[in-house]
Formats: sequence, structure tokens, C-alpha cells
Amino acid sequence: MRPSSKAFLDRRRSDVERELDRLLPPASSDPAEIHRAMRYSLFAGGKRIRPLLTLAAGEAFDADDHVLLPVACAMEMIHTYSLVHDDLPAMDDDDLRRGRPTCHKVFGEAIAILTGDALLTLAFESLAAVPLTPEEAPRMVHIIREIAAAAGTREGMVGGQVLDMLSQGTKVTPEELEQIHRWKTGALIRASILTGAMAGRSQPEEMDHLNRYAINLGLVFQIVDDVLDVTSTTERLGKTAGKDQSVAKATYPSIVGIDESRRIVTRLVEDALKSLSRLDRSTGVLVDLAEYLASRRA
Amino acid sequence: MRPSSKAFLDRRRSDVERELDRLLPPASSDPAEIHRAMRYSLFAGGKRIRPLLTLAAGEAFDADDHVLLPVACAMEMIHTYSLVHDDLPAMDDDDLRRGRPTCHKVFGEAIAILTGDALLTLAFESLAAVPLTPEEAPRMVHIIREIAAAAGTREGMVGGQVLDMLSQGTKVTPEELEQIHRWKTGALIRASILTGAMAGRSQPEEMDHLNRYAINLGLVFQIVDDVLDVTSTTERLGKTAGKDQSVAKATYPSIVGIDESRRIVTRLVEDALKSLSRLDRSTGVLVDLAEYLASRRA
Repeated sequence: MRPSSKAFLDRRRSDVERELDRLLPPASSDPAEIHRAMRYSLFAGGKRIRPLLTLAAGEAFDADDHVLLPVACAMEMIHTYSLVHDDLPAMDDDDLRRGRPTCHKVFGEAIAILTGDALLTLAFESLAAVPLTPEEAPRMVHIIREIAAAAGTREGMVGGQVLDMLSQGTKVTPEELEQIHRWKTGALIRASILTGAMAGRSQPEEMDHLNRYAINLGLVFQIVDDVLDVTSTTERLGKTAGKDQSVAKATYPSIVGIDESRRIVTRLVEDALKSLSRLDRSTGVLVDLAEYLASRRA
Repeated sequence: MRPSSKAFLDRRRSDVERELDRLLPPASSDPAEIHRAMRYSLFAGGKRIRPLLTLAAGEAFDADDHVLLPVACAMEMIHTYSLVHDDLPAMDDDDLRRGRPTCHKVFGEAIAILTGDALLTLAFESLAAVPLTPEEAPRMVHIIREIAAAAGTREGMVGGQVLDMLSQGTKVTPEELEQIHRWKTGALIRASILTGAMAGRSQPEEMDHLNRYAINLGLVFQIVDDVLDVTSTTERLGKTAGKDQSVAKATYPSIVGIDESRRIVTRLVEDALKSLSRLDRSTGVLVDLAEYLASRRA
């Protein structure tokens, strides 16, 4: 990664942490139990990939921080809510997340359910609480729509989660697996990128190129996740490694093998970068993020 | 209730049903499992009190249906999501809701968790998907903020749910109980009324009067709910009667007694109607709804 990209991401990661801290109710505020649980889940050393994608896209499209930072943080809140609910005993029943006991292990199931609900709700409240000019208000409504759709049931995160659950133990084709991945993980990654641009100013044809980059990157992210589940360790991942195989989950390695999975990732990144190159914008950080996501080790 | 109010409410209830049907994905659309569960929970013969309050307030403040109906339906979606999650085994563990087996009894816990998540998400998506004029967009952002705050942890529904859970088995003062009720049920009832007015045009001092009506009505609703839990039957309520006492939940009847609970309701309604009378608006339906909510039998 270029030093300038690394410096940008380090600086922006701090901005995200500060903004999340500002948006989350203090751990001491009433009812403290849930605010502690929300902060426990959100400030657990996550890599902040989604908000950084938002900020990198926002940089390329000249978005202003007073809109861009809350959008980036909303993405992280929604991602975190989905992890808290996915980890519940009735769902994936996981004990470890981001290297620590999962929310329901520490606070109990009832609080964990409400913590997910509260993070999802706070994401939308944070977006709607941004002071906006009359020109910015329609843009924010579009952003909210994009995010809600990406988190929803129709080609969105919850829909993908359902497909994933229903597919366990069944024979899954590569096409079906791609659909699950696009919905379950890809949709929110894609929305993280697109809403960064939507927070700025963009032309429709620019959005087409960015959209292609964003769709590819979402798929890259999940395929690499599948590969790491096989090749990495629980310690490095901060979540239970080997989990997919133990629950007979359909993954890229299980269906096409690890080598072919890696070749698919390479092709998707090449295509993503080609789309980016069509933009007459400063896309250096987006390029480096694509390469980082393809080669990450955790 | 005046015949004109009854006719208004009957007509508007049909409008709500039709709009909800339009906003919900078809039961056959992929993934059908969750769309069936969402529809099962939402179309279960609910009284639609929150959307009707929105529509009654919207009528008084000349709101247009293309904004007003989605706002009303968002309220019902959020209310329904909260019921689906409240009924989960890890929460209230209830088998019966709106006279039918609860969502998790029919579809399993995992789908029930995701159904609540999806209804909450769809509420915001539905609001943000409304075609808006440049003048309406800032209004919609305010409405989204109001709704998200009412559903959240700070003086909102999830916060009230946490307070309620934590208070079980402890000694609760009347002041603490009022706080629980205001947050847990009152906040969403209040937001249902205020956002109906916000969808139209209102002056700040008008909103002050409406806010007082709305706060009182939210409290009335929950106190009557507490009383009905003691005095009504499971069959009439469509949910398990006597539940509060069986889990030693603090309620108005358990803390101040049934007679005093009823006197409080009467005083709150009087105060609510006094606030309404200060509005130079057609508030007939809002008056009748207050009296209906105070005297309802189920």
C-alpha cells in the first residue's frame, strides 16, 4: 500500500473512532446496561473496513465530513448490529468475536438482541440528525434509502443471511453461493462505497463505474473471508476459525477449492480496478483498499 | 365515538392495510421464508392504533397521503418488530400474539430475530423511498429522526424495554414506572402523533400543544394495557392475560391499584383534550381516539 494511502487510512480510522464515540450514548447514561453493551460491541478493535471504504469514496467525490462521517459510522453500526445478532445462540451461536466474548456471552441474550436493535436504530437516527442544507436533505434521503435497502431482505444483508441459513446442509451451486455472498456481505460493502460518493457530487456514469467496483469488492471481501476461515487461525481472526466447515456451510473453498477461489479474487480485483480507472477522480486509496482486501491475512 | 370519526377510522384502516401490503415484499419473493414471516406478523389483525393516530394527526394538519401513509405504516412496522423481538424466548417468551402463535413459534427463533430486524429496516427504507419535492425532503429527514429517536435507547422504546427488564423483581416507585411506560410504549405513540403533524404544516406552538396530548395519550395507552392484563381474558386480548403478575412485572394496578389507575387515566385524558382544544384545527378524530383508548376493552 502506498504510504499516502496508509496515512490517509490511519488518519481516517481515528476520525471514525472519534465520531462513533460522539454518536454513541455515554456508557454511564441511562439505561447504562444497553449503552455499555453497544459500546462493548462497537469498540472491540474492528478493522472499520466499511467506514473506511465510505471515506475513501467520499474523498474521491469531494464529500463534506459533516455528512460523510455519520454515513461511515452508520455503516459500522449496521455491520456491528448484524454481528451481534448473527452470534446469538439461535443463529450462529458463536462465543468469540473480534477476539473477545460475544455480546450475549457478556450481557445475556435479551440485552444482545436489544443491542443489535439499538445499533440499527441509532444508525438511522445518526443519519437523520445531521444538520443539512436544503440542497443536502434530498441527498441524505437517498443515502438512507440506499443503506436501508442494502441491510434489508431484497438483495440485502438480512435476505442473504436467510439464504445462507436455509442453504446449510444442502447442495449449493457456485451461482447460488455468489448470490448468498452478494446479498449477505456484498450489499453492505457496496452501499458503504456508493453512499460515500452520494455524500459528494457525482455524475450518473461515474456511479455506474463505481458500482461495478463496489459489487466486485463486496464479493472479494467475502471470498477472502471464506478462504481465511480455512487457512487462518482463531487467534489471528479474532473469531472462531474453521467454523464454516464445522457447520457444513457452503463457501468458495468448499465448492470451487482454495486455488480457484484465489484466482476468482484476482479476476474480480482486476475488473474492479479497470472500472475505477474509468473515473477521472483521485481513486488511489480505493485502488489500494481493493488490493489490501484481496491480500489481507485477517 | 362520533359516526364521522368511526367512518374516518374505518376508511383509513383500509388505507393502512393496502399501503402495508404495497410496502411489504410479496410472500412469494425470494427469500420467501422471511417475507412470509414478516407478513404473518404484520397482518395478524392488529388494531393499527399507531398508524391511525398518525393519520388522525395528519388530517388535522393537512398532510398529504403520499408522505403520510408511509409514515403511518413505518410506525406499525416498528411496533410489530418490537412485538416479534419481545416475544422471543430470551425476552418475554410468549407463545400467543394477536390471537395467534408468535412468530418464533411458527418460523423458529432465527427467522423471528431476522423478521424483527427486517421490519425495522423496512420501516426506514419505506420512509426514504417516498418521492419527495425539494421542500418535503427536509421534513422527511426530521420525521425519520423523530421516529428513530422514539424507537431508540434514550427515552425511547428500546431504552424502556431495558428498564422494564431490569426492574422485574425489584421494588419500583410510581415515578420509575411512569418513566418505563413513557419510554417503552409512550415514545412510539407520541412519535406516531407528532410525525403525522410533521408530515403536514404546523406552527411551533401548535406542536407544543400536540406534544402534550401525545405524551398523555402514550401513558394512557400503557396504563390501560396494564389494567386490561388484570381484568381481561387471553381470548379477548389475543395475548396471554395475567402475564404481568406471573412475571412480577411492575404495573400501574400492582403499584397504585386498579381504581387509582383508572382515575389517573381519566385525568390524563382530560389534560390531553384540554391541550387539543387549544389547537385551531379539526381535531374531532383525535378527541375520539383519546376517549376510545381510555375506554377500550382489548
